[in-house]
Amino acid sequence: MRSEQAIITVLCMIYHDDEILLQNRIAQNWPGVTFPGGHVEKGESFVEAIIREMKEETGLEVRDLRLCGLKQLQSEDEERYVILLFKTESFSGELVSSKEGKMQWVKRSELDRYPLAPDFKELLEVFDRDDIQELMLEQNADGDISITLH
Amino acid sequence: MRSEQAIITVLCMIYHDDEILLQNRIAQNWPGVTFPGGHVEKGESFVEAIIREMKEETGLEVRDLRLCGLKQLQSEDEERYVILLFKTESFSGELVSSKEGKMQWVKRSELDRYPLAPDFKELLEVFDRDDIQELMLEQNADGDISITLH
Repeated sequence: MRSEQAIITVLCMIYHDDEILLQNRIAQNWPGVTFPGGHVEKGESFVEAIIREMKEETGLEVRDLRLCGLKQLQSEDEERYVILLFKTESFSGELVSSKEGKMQWVKRSELDRYPLAPDFKELLEVFDRDDIQELMLEQNADGDISITLH
Repeated sequence: MRSEQAIITVLCMIYHDDEILLQNRIAQNWPGVTFPGGHVEKGESFVEAIIREMKEETGLEVRDLRLCGLKQLQSEDEERYVILLFKTESFSGELVSSKEGKMQWVKRSELDRYPLAPDFKELLEVFDRDDIQELMLEQNADGDISITLH
């Protein structure tokens, strides 16, 4: 079997009416407002990983998760970075923030007021649209990054 | 970033009315009738991988693909084996078989006539049901395999 080096992570869009729950990330290498998420542990279920990460980063218990897309890129070390995208409007508990970043509900109509992560708008399309399954980031020889939706 | 050794593959359920397109696999280590699919190449889009694999294994051009679930297991070498599940009822071209196995349209009501792969029925549930996102295979210390749906 052909195996490869991969980084497997999950992101979740928690939404309610016209608001989505976003994280103002503290990370230096990928700043901006984006969706909460994190790494999948060794041998961990992907769905259980998203439930665990949402509890850790938002304080909320999420359920009725729907897989709605994939994002991928090759890391600088030529690893495949895979992000599994889930969404839900079913949650309970009290919203808190974590060391990963401050959580806040943002109206869709007010997204432009925030410092959005570079591919945020395309990522939102993958979360929202049934006819898009994948966002691919690719870097060309000049270092420019292209975003392709499939 | 935490990376791991992974094998990333795709499977597709091509369907039409009450029939699904299945492959009678020739592989020795995982025999039985199941869905066509294959490996994702280095740096390849997941959606493009499924289009390429369906052309190679079925002769059909597929489009309007929908990501509908995930399957995972840990390989004997402790690699994470990830299978991305897509489905479509949009296709064109002439059905052919490949060295991977004979392709045939099977009525859902007649599935029991075929030597189905061990987790086929649970996998079909993941393809069919919006409330199931993941199938996880786990092996316990005695070597018994359990199937969990999330």
